[in-house]
Parts: sequence; structure tokens; C-alpha cells
Amino acid sequence: MSQKLDEALSQKSAKEQQLWAVRHTAEHVLHQAVKELYPEILLAMGPATEDGFYFDFDGSPKEGVKVVISEANFPKIEKRMREIIKRNLPMICQEVSPAEARKLFGDNPYKMEWVDEIEKRGEKVTIYWTGKPGEKGSMVDLCSGPHAESTGAIKAFKLLSVAGAYWHGDEKNKMLTRIYGTAFNSQEELDAYLEQLERAKQNDHRKLGAELGLFTFSDLIGKGLPLWTPKGATVRRELERFVVDEEIKRGYLHVNTPDLALLDLYKTSGHYPYYKETMYAPIKIDDEEFMLRPMTCPHHFEIYKSQPHSYKELPMRLAELAQLYRYEKSGELTGLMRVRTFCLADAHIIARKSQANQEINAVLDLIEYVAGLWGLKAGDDYHFRLSLGDRADDKKYYKDDASWDFAEEVLRKVLKERQSIYVEAEQEAAFYGPKIDVQMKNVHGKEETAFTVQYDFVMPKRFELKYINEEGKEEEPIVIHRSSIGAIERIMAFLIEKFGGAFPLWLAPVQAVVIPISQDQHEYAESLVAELKAANIRVENWNEAESMQKRIRRAEKEKVPYMIIIGKQEVEDQTISVRQRGNKDLGLLRLSKLIEQMKKEIETKAR
Amino acid sequence: MSQKLDEALSQKSAKEQQLWAVRHTAEHVLHQAVKELYPEILLAMGPATEDGFYFDFDGSPKEGVKVVISEANFPKIEKRMREIIKRNLPMICQEVSPAEARKLFGDNPYKMEWVDEIEKRGEKVTIYWTGKPGEKGSMVDLCSGPHAESTGAIKAFKLLSVAGAYWHGDEKNKMLTRIYGTAFNSQEELDAYLEQLERAKQNDHRKLGAELGLFTFSDLIGKGLPLWTPKGATVRRELERFVVDEEIKRGYLHVNTPDLALLDLYKTSGHYPYYKETMYAPIKIDDEEFMLRPMTCPHHFEIYKSQPHSYKELPMRLAELAQLYRYEKSGELTGLMRVRTFCLADAHIIARKSQANQEINAVLDLIEYVAGLWGLKAGDDYHFRLSLGDRADDKKYYKDDASWDFAEEVLRKVLKERQSIYVEAEQEAAFYGPKIDVQMKNVHGKEETAFTVQYDFVMPKRFELKYINEEGKEEEPIVIHRSSIGAIERIMAFLIEKFGGAFPLWLAPVQAVVIPISQDQHEYAESLVAELKAANIRVENWNEAESMQKRIRRAEKEKVPYMIIIGKQEVEDQTISVRQRGNKDLGLLRLSKLIEQMKKEIETKAR
Repeated sequence: MSQKLDEALSQKSAKEQQLWAVRHTAEHVLHQAVKELYPEILLAMGPATEDGFYFDFDGSPKEGVKVVISEANFPKIEKRMREIIKRNLPMICQEVSPAEARKLFGDNPYKMEWVDEIEKRGEKVTIYWTGKPGEKGSMVDLCSGPHAESTGAIKAFKLLSVAGAYWHGDEKNKMLTRIYGTAFNSQEELDAYLEQLERAKQNDHRKLGAELGLFTFSDLIGKGLPLWTPKGATVRRELERFVVDEEIKRGYLHVNTPDLALLDLYKTSGHYPYYKETMYAPIKIDDEEFMLRPMTCPHHFEIYKSQPHSYKELPMRLAELAQLYRYEKSGELTGLMRVRTFCLADAHIIARKSQANQEINAVLDLIEYVAGLWGLKAGDDYHFRLSLGDRADDKKYYKDDASWDFAEEVLRKVLKERQSIYVEAEQEAAFYGPKIDVQMKNVHGKEETAFTVQYDFVMPKRFELKYINEEGKEEEPIVIHRSSIGAIERIMAFLIEKFGGAFPLWLAPVQAVVIPISQDQHEYAESLVAELKAANIRVENWNEAESMQKRIRRAEKEKVPYMIIIGKQEVEDQTISVRQRGNKDLGLLRLSKLIEQMKKEIETKAR
Repeated sequence: MSQKLDEALSQKSAKEQQLWAVRHTAEHVLHQAVKELYPEILLAMGPATEDGFYFDFDGSPKEGVKVVISEANFPKIEKRMREIIKRNLPMICQEVSPAEARKLFGDNPYKMEWVDEIEKRGEKVTIYWTGKPGEKGSMVDLCSGPHAESTGAIKAFKLLSVAGAYWHGDEKNKMLTRIYGTAFNSQEELDAYLEQLERAKQNDHRKLGAELGLFTFSDLIGKGLPLWTPKGATVRRELERFVVDEEIKRGYLHVNTPDLALLDLYKTSGHYPYYKETMYAPIKIDDEEFMLRPMTCPHHFEIYKSQPHSYKELPMRLAELAQLYRYEKSGELTGLMRVRTFCLADAHIIARKSQANQEINAVLDLIEYVAGLWGLKAGDDYHFRLSLGDRADDKKYYKDDASWDFAEEVLRKVLKERQSIYVEAEQEAAFYGPKIDVQMKNVHGKEETAFTVQYDFVMPKRFELKYINEEGKEEEPIVIHRSSIGAIERIMAFLIEKFGGAFPLWLAPVQAVVIPISQDQHEYAESLVAELKAANIRVENWNEAESMQKRIRRAEKEKVPYMIIIGKQEVEDQTISVRQRGNKDLGLLRLSKLIEQMKKEIETKAR
């Protein structure tokens, strides 16, 4: 179960509270060490965070003073921190009056601002001493805690990085220096965390995307608009075809609708007021205003409405790989994770109310099947969140208490029947109904919604969706909005990081390379390549005049799953020497045998 | 060889000139008949056209007069026309002075306007008499001919339709009535033409698209923006996957680039001044202006430029199914043929100059292979056009005489070596180089460019495309722009009309239906459907309580390639009765046998 889930289920556990206090204490040790080493600086502030702590200081508080700290100074600061920890100074809390606080911190405008703020709010002012109050070698800070009993409680810590940070995060304020660090209850835990951090850095999809030639960006094209190079486009294509084929197998009807539509469409759907801020400016064509679509729903409703429908056609599962456009600030664009246009594996299931349970179950089956392909397990890697509306807030949520009650109960029942681990979250529903979110932690430990399944009783009304029931009368269906795999860009970023670029065979952009040791094997190499291509295997002929060892190293670096090496002996015996990615020697084989093995691996989508 | 090609090769042939004159004469016979039957009308004008003739008249020239002619009046008008033809009136040309013409046509403002116009241009005024000048039963019109010798030359004619038409085609002018007709030199030729016309009408992709549920439009989404319903999206998907796979087989590298880019990109490419009118308005995001792309070229160049390249990597064939956006007036939008956004099977081959011949040949091989899949033959169904620049026009064409000479000669040589039938056309090149156009006649007989292969020596300069040659020095490549299959929307329109909705098996949205005669066969039907699905055949189970005959008729109407009918006997023998589209009875079969046959038909893309 994830840390976040734990937290959600039982608030903060005692263990987490203890670690939080230790990290907060480590922050005090850090600012004391920095102050002792660089007395000219001004302390600004510093909290504990979910995975460590940070500390902001002003290195140029007055004319002529300029303290610059870089990661090169970390050994010195860490040494001083270790000394302070060794002193095992007690952490002592005192409640003081604003006047007393002003006397203590009078030379520090950052602290003074804080005292004013606390006084204005009518809260109590507390300070924390590191060491006996007033004694030599002690340190005091304005702080509400909590802290460990003494500095000796810090068993393992590490400073991580330095960055600039505006006071209050506002670029109109002064730029301060921020030092990031983390602390754990044991060196083993710290080492494991640092290793994970290093792996995340090594596997960052932006870094791997460039190294493996998967995608690129261009200043001339614009920020947040990735260009998929041949290899990345190959992985993407395999993934897209898989999604489409799998959905069709499960009874979805794939359609194809335009990426832009009249502004009126989104007014009819009621999306416009909610999505206005995230939509791009309208495009005028003659006298009409067109919008790049931020969602697919109304497009699919128009397809549904192009024909009358009988109850026998329901549930109708309309699906599309839909290109969507949503505004993102340029500062928030991040690789493939935050982009200005993305392709969503979207679908809208138009169903009778009585079919909702079965359909939502089928959607969760699909989501869990796909998650399983990447080796993700419910509970360990993701959990469900039942996102509810608020009957009192009819600005944010469509007013129809009975429908909300019914829909929320349908979703809850599905989760209970599946014995899914889930949390309930108020105020997280869409404006048109409640939803089940599939929550995952990203590589930085932050919980995000990976997929959602939404129950919608509002759109059918707005779009006057109908079907003819058994008695020949019109009835209103409900709509289930869902994604099987999310946005292609995001899942690609996820997969690149998950596999560190070493994609499972079925997704690998190059599945095999043929490496003839010398020119004498070029002809044989070509015949092998032809045979592999005929078997629909993505293969390259690496017949360059470069040493075999170099080419093997290159194949390893490019994470090619299979290397087929041929020398004199292999040509004579009509065999091949095969090495599998990760330095596994498969020895001498017949090509047909390898093809058989690869095809099986591809078919089963083995990891 | 097409009529248009003939024409281009030898101007208008004598035969065509003769037919043109006959049709022009038929138009005079038509307006004489109408004038004799409805003397109150005013003749406006009427020419011969490529496939017939038409005649515009004013049915309400003054207060109190209102002549309305509909297709219901055609028998009466045609009867009078036959009488006039039978009279075998001579067609007599006279040159007259403007004053004489004004005397003759003084009561007809349409003719008077024409006389003024001819006088202004300083041209000669000619009139044509039908019958002896001035004699009773004769008719005169302002006309420059040419005509047949007499009305008896009209061997076969037919009136086709009535429509409204503004004088001079300008909606600010009066709306006139237009009667369309055609004439041929024999009844057989006329009958063949009428049959073709009827077929074209029956096969109109807009009509079939609605009948077969392939695509639809929505007023809420907007004009010119087709929505592909499940069946149409299936055909489209099969087609797209085929194109991508076939291109990859031929060494193309498929990529995926964004549908919008900074305006500056198109300024750098130099496209902007040429394409400005056909581009949609810019979209402002923060302080930058983005455009929906009207072409893919600069996007592919940015991919090329994301890495340095060696001569060993050339030719590099970057391909994409690229969504493009071009402005079309709402009045010009036509089904899938003229749309506001389309998906082009685009590619840009970046090559050394010395590779141009081989690459252009390979492109033409691909184009001819694909055309052959639809049964199109060079010469009969399409021909090539070598579109040249104009050294004197450096506004329209990039100034670089040597490069134009070289490139035009490369293209000419390819066409000659291939022994292709081709015409040369001045002033038809792109601004960046000459091209080979694949010209086809549309269903209305109008010649259109289906695909182009363009040689480009300008973009590599503008984008500073480079590669490192054998000596380690930078060289500039050339670019070949091409499409294999054109825009998906257009080729879909073409295929729907070409096959009248009866798609070849590999493209058919539903490849087979299973029809159990009674409920007793439902279980067997399901097992058959499961087996067919497992073999990747798109099959539907038509187990409705509807008579077998009705379901068979429905399958024929929906152009389903295979009907699998099962009754009591089939269940007992574990066989199936198979009917192929077009009423072919294949008799009793084992399912495995049918699957084998279908798979072969799909694999070979049989028509």
C-alpha cells in the first residue's frame, strides 16, 4: 500500500509523524550549521516536506555582503551538521509574546514579517530553541514544530541540491537561496531513497527520450509540442494499435471525429464555463468561431445523435484516440507529462441505467488488465478513489440530488463488489457526476490521477440523448466517460521511465540487430535480416566496419532486446549467436528458433 | 487514354470539335423550343460544355409574367426540340455591326449587355441563325459559334436537370433558370453516358456514406468537418494501417508531429506568403502566435535537424499521416472531397542530388502499386503531368535557373525511362521546384491532381538542412515531397464511389454476417462468430427474429461480402451455407474452409 494511501486511510500514521519531526529538526540543524559557518546570512524560512526538508536564506542581506553557497560547500555544511547532531542538543519549545519575539528577531525582516502575520491572525507565537535557551552554541527560530526531542534523533541525513527561490514564491520578491535535503531513521533507508532518486534521474523520460532518440522539441515549432522521431513514433504506434485492437475486442466501436468544432458545441455541452480557462482562443472562419477541442464527449454525442437508437443497441461504447488541446502555462510544461496537445484514449459508453454496474466493471477490468501489462498491482502501485460531489454546492455540481445519490451508490457498489481498496474523496467529482479515479504515485512520490471512470447523468439531458425502449417509448441513457490508458504522451513518459528505455519486446522500436563480425558475413547477414523482416520483426543490419564489441556495447546502450552475431562458424553451420539485452548469452541457435521465441514473446506482451 | 489527356496532347481533336459544335447547336435548338413554347421569356445565354450544354433564361422579365419550368416540362420541350431537329434548319453565321445587333436584340437587356461588352473589346459581333435569316420559324442569337451545319446533325440528346443560376454567377444579379442537357452522335453513346451519370449519382459518396453509415456531419460541430461513424472509421483504419505498413516496408520512417506550430515556422519555410489565404487565423497562446498547420514539410525538417546526419543515413524518408488545416469557403465544401481539415499520407525524402532519380522512381512505383490495388491503370485511368516552373516569373517561382533546369530534367528523365505517358505543363510547379502530378478524372469528368511528387531545392536552403559527406564536409541535400495515397478523406470518397460501397473484403467494415434461420441455431451461430472473431474477421451475429430472406436482403443492401446462413441441417452436419455478395451461392462449406478463403482474399487485397 502506498504511503499516500496509508495517509488517506488513517491520516498521518505515528511513524510518519515521527519522521516528519525528525526532518523538521534536520532543517533546524541545517540552518544552524549554515549560520555558524556564514554568520552574515539572514535565515528566511524552512519546513519539512513529504520527502525531506528545505531551508531558504538571504545571502546578501545588505550592501557588501554576498554569500554564495553551491553543492561544492555541502561537505563542509554536512560536517558541521554532524557535529551539531553529535552535541545532541535538546529541541525546546517556548510560547512568547509578539513583543518578546520582536526583541529576539528584530534584526531579521523575514522573521518580523512572520511575527506580524501570526499576531494579525491572533495565533500564539512559539519559538524553538536548539540547545538550552540563551546558552552559548544554542540557536533559536520562530517555529510551530513539531520536532524530535533532540538533534541526536537524526540518524541519517543528506543535502541534495541548491536552487533559487523567491520569498513567498512570488517573483516580485527577492530571490533567496534554497538548500534541499532529506533525513531518514536509518542509513539503509536513506541509501534506498538516494538510490531511487538516482534511478529516477537516470530514467527521466526527457533524458532517455533524447538519448534513445524517441522524441524531440523544436523552438521553431513551439513549447509543449513534442515531435516523435521514428523510434518514438514506432513505440507509440504499437501502443496505439494495441489499445484500439484491445478495445475493439471488448466491444468498443472506434470512431474518428474532428479536432475542432464550433464554440456553440461546448456551450451546449455546458463545458465552456468550466473549461474556458484551459481552452485556446477561438479561430474565426468566415462568421463562425471554432475551438480546438479540450474534450471528446460532445463529438461522440453528435455521432450518437446522427441516428435513432433502440435499446438493443445499448450499451454503445464509442471510442477514439482523440487529439485534445488544453492550455498550459509555458513554465509548467514538462517533457511529455505536461504538453499543450495530447492524444487521449477516450471513450463514452452510452448505456441504460441498469447497465451501469456491468459497464463500469468492464472498464475497470480493462484498466486493470492494461496496468497489469506494465506489472502494476492494485494496492502496491495504484489504488482507487471514489470522487464525490457536494449536494450543497450547486455552482460546482449540477443540482440533482437523487441522481447524485444513485450514481455514487452505483460506483461504490462496483468497488465493494470488486473488493477494491479505495478511498472516498469529497469535492473531487466532475460537474456532471461522480467518478472513480485510478490514483498513482509519480516518480517524485506525488499522487496523481492516472485514469478516471466517470458517471454522467447531465450530458444526456443537455444533448437530449435518447433511445427507444421495449415499449417503443423514448428513454434517456446515462453516459460513462473513461480512458483505458490515459493520454498517449503521459503513458509514453510513464513507460519510458518504468522500463528505463528497455521496452518490452513488443514495444521496442528496434527488436533485433544483426552484427556480422566481418565483411565475409555480409551476405548471410542480409538473408537473416530479410527473414526477420518477413516475420514482421523490426530488425536493423549493423554491418558497419566497427569492432563487434563496440557494436554490442552500442546495442546495449540503445537497449535493443536481441543481438544476432554471426561469424565464420555461424555462416558455415547456418546458425546464429544470440545475446539478449542485459548481457544474457543465448548461445547458438537456428534463426527459425529465435523467430519462434520472439513471436511468442511479442504475442504474450511479456515484460 | 482519357479524353482530357487526348485534348492536352493534341489540343482539341477533330472529333471533339465536331461534338462540341453539335452540343452548341443543341443548345440553340433548346432555347428555340423554349421560346416557341413560352414566348414571354427572355433568353439570357447558353454554351456547350465538356459534357453537354446548358441554357439560362429569365422567366419573369416584367411585372405579371412568371414562367416556371421544371423537369416535368421536359417531355414537352424535348418533343418540340425533336421537331426543330427534324426540320433540319441550317445554322447560318453573319457578321453584323453593333448597331445592327442592337436593332435585332433591342428588347433583351442580356443581349444588349453582351453587345456593349463585345464592342468595348473591339471584337467582331457575330450572330447565328437557326433556319433561313428572317424567315418564319427561324431563330437568331448573338453567338460566336461554332455550330453544326444544321439542326439535323443532332443525332441524340437529352435534357437533364433544372437549376437556378445568377446572371454572371454573381449573387447580386437576378436569379435565372438554367436547363442542363447533353447531346451525342448516337443513341448508344447517349445511353452509355446516361448510365454512367446514373451510376455516379447512385454511387455518390455522400449518398452512400449516409446509407451505409460511414460518416456524418453535424451542424453543431461545423461545416466541412466530417465525423467518421464506426463503420467508416473501420475502413479508414484499415486503409491507414495499410499505408503505414506498406511505406515502412519500403523504407519510410514514420513520425508524428504536432498539428500546430509557431507562425514563425511558416515564415522561415517561406510558405506563409503563398499559403496565407488558405491558413486559418493564428491562435494566441501567452505572447506567441500559433497556426494550425497547412502542410507538414517544415515539421519534418525540424525532426531532421534535431540530429546531425551522415551521408550514410540518406536517403531519409520521413513519413506521417498528417492532419492538415486549409481554409475552404463554406459554399465550396463538398462531402469528403472538399473539407476544412484532412489527413494527408505525407512524406519528405531527404536525399543527395544523385539519389533523386532512384527515389522518384521508387515513389512512382509505390503510387502505381496503390493505384493498381483499386484497379486503376496508367493511361486509362490516370496519367502523369510534368509541372514546370517559369524562369521569367520570380515572384511565383524561386529564382535559381540552374536548379530548375537540373530538377526538371531529373523528373523528365524518370518519366521517359519509365515509358510513362505524360504531358508537360508550364506554370504548374510549386514555388520551390518542379513536380510530377498524377492526374485523374473525377466522376464528373473533371481532371484533378490525385497525387504529386515534388522536387524541392529551396527548403533545404531555407532550413539549412545539411549532411556530412564522405570527406567529412557539409553538403546540402534535396527534398522530395510526395503522397502515396493523397488525403485519407479524398481517397475514401474515391473508394466509396469506385466500389459503390461494396468494398473489397480487406476494407469492408463488416466482412461477414451469421444468419441463423431460427432460434434453434443460436448456439451454433455464437460458436461460429467466436471462431471468426478469433481469426480476426469482422463478423456480426444477425440473430434477430426477422425472416431469413429479409436479413439476406439487408446484408445485400449493406454490401456485406459474406453471408453465413445456418439452419437445422447445417447444425447437424456442422457446416455452413455461404452466399457471397452479389448473389453468389457458394453452397455448403466447413467454416475452416471459408476462413481460409477469406484470409487469402484479405491478404492479397483482392478486389
